[in-house]
Amino acid sequence: MRIFGIDPGSVRTGYGCVDTDGTRHRLVSAGALAMSSTAALPDRLLDIHRGLTRLLHEASPDCVVVENLFHARNVRSALVLGHARGVAVLAAVEAGVPVVEYTPAEVKQAVVGYGRAEKGQLQQMVKLLLGLDTVPSPHDAADALAVAICHAHLQGPAAGVASRRVPRHERSWRHARVAPARR
Amino acid sequence: MRIFGIDPGSVRTGYGCVDTDGTRHRLVSAGALAMSSTAALPDRLLDIHRGLTRLLHEASPDCVVVENLFHARNVRSALVLGHARGVAVLAAVEAGVPVVEYTPAEVKQAVVGYGRAEKGQLQQMVKLLLGLDTVPSPHDAADALAVAICHAHLQGPAAGVASRRVPRHERSWRHARVAPARR
Repeated sequence: MRIFGIDPGSVRTGYGCVDTDGTRHRLVSAGALAMSSTAALPDRLLDIHRGLTRLLHEASPDCVVVENLFHARNVRSALVLGHARGVAVLAAVEAGVPVVEYTPAEVKQAVVGYGRAEKGQLQQMVKLLLGLDTVPSPHDAADALAVAICHAHLQGPAAGVASRRVPRHERSWRHARVAPARR
Repeated sequence: MRIFGIDPGSVRTGYGCVDTDGTRHRLVSAGALAMSSTAALPDRLLDIHRGLTRLLHEASPDCVVVENLFHARNVRSALVLGHARGVAVLAAVEAGVPVVEYTPAEVKQAVVGYGRAEKGQLQQMVKLLLGLDTVPSPHDAADALAVAICHAHLQGPAAGVASRRVPRHERSWRHARVAPARR
């Protein structure tokens, strides 16, 4: 099963793609789309959407995983982040790939085993689980990989063969969160 | 000059298009894209983006105007609204149309003449200024028309001939807001 994680941001959007059998994971690709911080938001949205559309086409994943961010500092930053996240999710749906979301605590719990783990611990676990020499850089890429690994762990080994495309009416974040564990 | 106003929402997205010489306005089209409230957000984003892309192609406006919403009730609703607004703005940028934004107070000031006007007053003024028999329905359509008329008023009559496409590096919300009045 190929999982594509996204850590959306209006200035930098991280992505990380892994192949997994539910237990062992292999890094396929990771990185970050960097937008000019002086560019207008509409142009940054265009760059995020185009970049992710291209990456999803290249990776052809079985699902896209995005962190569910209800911890934004304030209404203004939530709104800006929502814009970036909206065009990221759109790119996934346009590619016909189901979208799954997890809260930051779910990601930490599934990857580190502790829902209140530090960012640094999470990144070290990503390095360890993927058998890498260093923590993936930039940190947005590591965060995106953590989200992908979270889904791999919560889907479990049984998901290794479940690479079917989810029908449109089932493509719901909530659907994926109600019954994530198949272990 | 043809102005296309959008009132984005994750369940209903209003739109309203007007032709204007800066003083007199003519209704071109108005309505609302209604998404199923039971559909998953990713599918609703796809519907908003596809619907607006089609409408913008049909209307071929000189600019798109969106209300600047920093008054969302809380972080969660701001995030969801940001998703809808993000794909709406993306549709405009993909169509090569500059995007302009105004705060709700700027819209009320420019349309009613009073920044703290009631919604009902705003809708009555839209009806009056467009020479309509009734207030446009649904209210999302009236709100989108109000945003479009706001831009028409703030651009002034000189803008009637300024239908040039704004170059990419100038396409900034801030740009449009720093120097909106050319009267």
